[in-house]
Amino acid sequence: MSINDRISKLRGLMKEKGITAYIIPSSDPHQSEYVADHYNSRAWISGFTGSAGTVVVTNDKAILWTDGRYFIQAEEELKDSEYELFKLGVEGFPSYMEWLRDNLGSGDTIGFDGKVLSQFVVENLEKKIQDKNIQFISEYDLVGEIWEDRPNIPKEETFIHELKYTGLSAEEKIGKVREEMKKKDADYFLIAGLDDIAWLYNIRGGDVPQNPVIISYGLVSMDKAYLFVNKSKINKEVEEYLIENRVNIEDYDKIAEIVFNIGEDNTLILNKRKINRWLYNSIPKGCKIVNEIDITTKLKAVKNETEIENQRNAYIKDGVALTKFLYWLDNNVDKEKITEISAEEKLNGLRSEQDGFVDISFSTISAYGPNAAMAHYSATEESNAVLKPKGFYLVDSGGQYLDGTTDITRTMALGPITDEEKKDFTLTLKGHINLIDTKFLEGTNGYQLDVICRYPLWQEGLDYKHGTGHGIGFLLNVHEGPHNIAAAPNNIELEKGMVVSIEPGVYKAGKHGIRIENIVVVDKDIETESGQFMKFETLSFTPIDLDSIDVSLLTEREKEWLNNYHQEVYHKLSSYLSEEEQNWLKDKTKSI
Amino acid sequence: MSINDRISKLRGLMKEKGITAYIIPSSDPHQSEYVADHYNSRAWISGFTGSAGTVVVTNDKAILWTDGRYFIQAEEELKDSEYELFKLGVEGFPSYMEWLRDNLGSGDTIGFDGKVLSQFVVENLEKKIQDKNIQFISEYDLVGEIWEDRPNIPKEETFIHELKYTGLSAEEKIGKVREEMKKKDADYFLIAGLDDIAWLYNIRGGDVPQNPVIISYGLVSMDKAYLFVNKSKINKEVEEYLIENRVNIEDYDKIAEIVFNIGEDNTLILNKRKINRWLYNSIPKGCKIVNEIDITTKLKAVKNETEIENQRNAYIKDGVALTKFLYWLDNNVDKEKITEISAEEKLNGLRSEQDGFVDISFSTISAYGPNAAMAHYSATEESNAVLKPKGFYLVDSGGQYLDGTTDITRTMALGPITDEEKKDFTLTLKGHINLIDTKFLEGTNGYQLDVICRYPLWQEGLDYKHGTGHGIGFLLNVHEGPHNIAAAPNNIELEKGMVVSIEPGVYKAGKHGIRIENIVVVDKDIETESGQFMKFETLSFTPIDLDSIDVSLLTEREKEWLNNYHQEVYHKLSSYLSEEEQNWLKDKTKSI
Repeated sequence: MSINDRISKLRGLMKEKGITAYIIPSSDPHQSEYVADHYNSRAWISGFTGSAGTVVVTNDKAILWTDGRYFIQAEEELKDSEYELFKLGVEGFPSYMEWLRDNLGSGDTIGFDGKVLSQFVVENLEKKIQDKNIQFISEYDLVGEIWEDRPNIPKEETFIHELKYTGLSAEEKIGKVREEMKKKDADYFLIAGLDDIAWLYNIRGGDVPQNPVIISYGLVSMDKAYLFVNKSKINKEVEEYLIENRVNIEDYDKIAEIVFNIGEDNTLILNKRKINRWLYNSIPKGCKIVNEIDITTKLKAVKNETEIENQRNAYIKDGVALTKFLYWLDNNVDKEKITEISAEEKLNGLRSEQDGFVDISFSTISAYGPNAAMAHYSATEESNAVLKPKGFYLVDSGGQYLDGTTDITRTMALGPITDEEKKDFTLTLKGHINLIDTKFLEGTNGYQLDVICRYPLWQEGLDYKHGTGHGIGFLLNVHEGPHNIAAAPNNIELEKGMVVSIEPGVYKAGKHGIRIENIVVVDKDIETESGQFMKFETLSFTPIDLDSIDVSLLTEREKEWLNNYHQEVYHKLSSYLSEEEQNWLKDKTKSI
Repeated sequence: MSINDRISKLRGLMKEKGITAYIIPSSDPHQSEYVADHYNSRAWISGFTGSAGTVVVTNDKAILWTDGRYFIQAEEELKDSEYELFKLGVEGFPSYMEWLRDNLGSGDTIGFDGKVLSQFVVENLEKKIQDKNIQFISEYDLVGEIWEDRPNIPKEETFIHELKYTGLSAEEKIGKVREEMKKKDADYFLIAGLDDIAWLYNIRGGDVPQNPVIISYGLVSMDKAYLFVNKSKINKEVEEYLIENRVNIEDYDKIAEIVFNIGEDNTLILNKRKINRWLYNSIPKGCKIVNEIDITTKLKAVKNETEIENQRNAYIKDGVALTKFLYWLDNNVDKEKITEISAEEKLNGLRSEQDGFVDISFSTISAYGPNAAMAHYSATEESNAVLKPKGFYLVDSGGQYLDGTTDITRTMALGPITDEEKKDFTLTLKGHINLIDTKFLEGTNGYQLDVICRYPLWQEGLDYKHGTGHGIGFLLNVHEGPHNIAAAPNNIELEKGMVVSIEPGVYKAGKHGIRIENIVVVDKDIETESGQFMKFETLSFTPIDLDSIDVSLLTEREKEWLNNYHQEVYHKLSSYLSEEEQNWLKDKTKSI
């Protein structure tokens, strides 16, 4: 069935249901960053395979909205269909909500599958069109009705994340949630975020590629805790664990019914950005809603001592795999044909040999030369460059281990590099050191720290068009809130125990891409008359390419940080390496 | 009349009007930062003379709320009355709105003078007590009814701020306001901010000490512009200027009537934080309100070329006065008795000798030794320290000139200082240089830059508990929005032409206080593939005390900045100085 045939079938159904415009977003019922194939309706209806985009279809229009990362790809993928591309953030292109407001009239209807649009998005849409008499029709998944070979909702098996990794039992975590509920006089806490639920109940699965979560909902009251899940995913052992921890297991689809039956006059805490319209509509009318970041999101962001100790271990194993890879690459780039994709496979293989390896934590970015100038590059058969003994190779990768989730980026010169490349690498490193080595006052938010990392780049007229750092899960999603380090205000302070990435870069189209990323955990530093100061403890250990550094641009303090870091790298990794690898690492971590 | 007698008279009136609790804030009808004595009802009713505080009186309670700057002073000033002190920001003390919510019941009434509470504050109060049946009574200024020797509303004469200073006529500015109104489909723009009105109509006065504004309201439609003012303040010349610029002059009290008569179905732009409840209530019910920062506030923040050129000149004159003062102090501190207050008088005298001097721009902070550890210190007869030839003296001062408003802080060693003092001074200087010499990407907001200044202090466990910088008026208020440089998010980008202070410090109770403040104007820097970069042009020129610097802590770049700055100081100021002063300045600006 061609894309235009799909549109045409959709229009038939729209007519039947009396829908003027139908919205197909990129989301699943849990507003996950990455979704199972089953939920990729937007890709199926449009042919556009990028990770972010929204489709609106009317009787005579079919439009796709996507952002700057995907303009070229979208143009290519849409060219044989009637889709128009609307470029987000480009002057002259309205957002899809503005477009609906401007192009629909009184008496028209907007349709969407209420299970995949969040209550937050629906309320925004309501506000946008409030002056017009437009109704919503949210009960039909029209794409589902015409998508013949649609992949099933995944049914991967669930496993217990053991206490030796998590440090707290599910029951203890539920107790902490209830303490927070008490502070807000809440009767119920409703959860849709898959990583939040997995964290709370100490269970993991495989329903979303590289994200070890289970498709489920959660509901906690002062005396009950529910997991709503396809019961076929829960084996005897998991069932017993959950019962032992006083968790009731219910069918995935039963969530709306149970929520509906909690009765009026209850106070519910929930996050409208996570709860879908369908589920929100099941809340009894008399209930009071406290809309805020999920309690679990805030609790899980602050890692406990057991989790931190496990993570330290996971990052060493991960550093061993990456170091072995860099050794192999350094020694073979001029001997055999290595492509971006074959390098990626080699690295994935080395990671999978590590103890407790579960999966990689995201699609490896293996980018050579100008390909690395695309910050979110993913090698395809067409783009797959052959690595040569010159210029930069950038690798951004990570693993899911029983004892933690990792994420790290290194950029390495595979041979001679230009002065410009060397300078850009050194400035990136200076930004990295500036931030990773800073003290900061307790109560500081990530947005305050962002510029510390950009500062050395700005002085030379350079900048990177992405955030400086993101939170990271614990055998969970590689991107995890609520904290981050970015220019946009985010009112979450960096607390002791929070894990975050530090990843400045330089990207020059047609030339090269550089990024240096380490993961750190927030810790306490000195207390003075000005207050309690905080610092970062580095978790990731893999050499930073000395051959790419213009040492004359580094301050004494920066050299000292780098030398200390490299000494630690050697100390922590060498015993897991072969003699040849050890010798190589010795040289790669020598003092400058 | 004792304070308790005043409270008792107020309670009599409250009973008469059926008011349960009466609020007396620190504000005037224009929400000015500094108010004319006429509006200092809160000081009169409470005896507390600090600049910020709110009083609530009920039948059996009298409470004053104030912040940490004033706890000691308030305790002292309230001790002979029945007032209780409620400490803002201290655990266990509710805000006055929370207190009213918790202590008033159904059927009670809250009274206040609607002319001095902003619509923003009243709406917040409404939200706080929405669950209770409590009415507002906002039509009585009860303190006014019992305050016998109340100072009059000032009637200082108005003068024209000439075109050679402002660069744009009032009519041109009104035209710019209308352009902005058109973008929002607005019919009217209502203005209460005294500096906004003075800027718009190119007039100045003397109604608020050190703030050359005129007590007035403004109203702009697409074809009319009004100034509401006591007409006795407007002489023939000003009247002619305003008529020439198509400004209608109306009586101050006529604002509500004219607003009421604009009729329904109009769109009004106004700032609820500036418009008082009384005036807001006069808006016809059918009107649409666009609540945002005043158009004039945004326009006036971006100085035009004429204003910038004038400011450069004003800052040189101001630098001459301050440099003469520092020379005098340096040469006389060990010869005659100089106190904080006599030093302040000397400096005010030197400023007043400068061309175009109108007034000082705020009460000079003249602080010796430990007194400077209070960031907002103001010398009194009791605290007035004698300056000695050792330790630090801090002076934060500024002037109102026809060609600009200035603000500058210098800290000088009057003799030997401790190693700790030297280190703290040098770290403050490093922070100052870090920010004043930075490049930053166009579109950057002040909150992103704040940490650049704090960074060197944080690394040594130090911090200052105030913002890094504030905007400054042009022969107007010394604190002017909407931009600033501070940790709290403020969604205003630093545009070319904006003037802002850079003023890091170190404050150690019982020891010393240090602050180094210069004023800068935002300018364009290079454009690269990463975008347009911006920089700061320094406006203030006065030597930074070399004797207080530990040169070994400075980087080469920092030394270079300081040497270049000092060369400019000498170059710009020396021709206005005596030979002795020149020789002194030569030494104080020598290369290090």
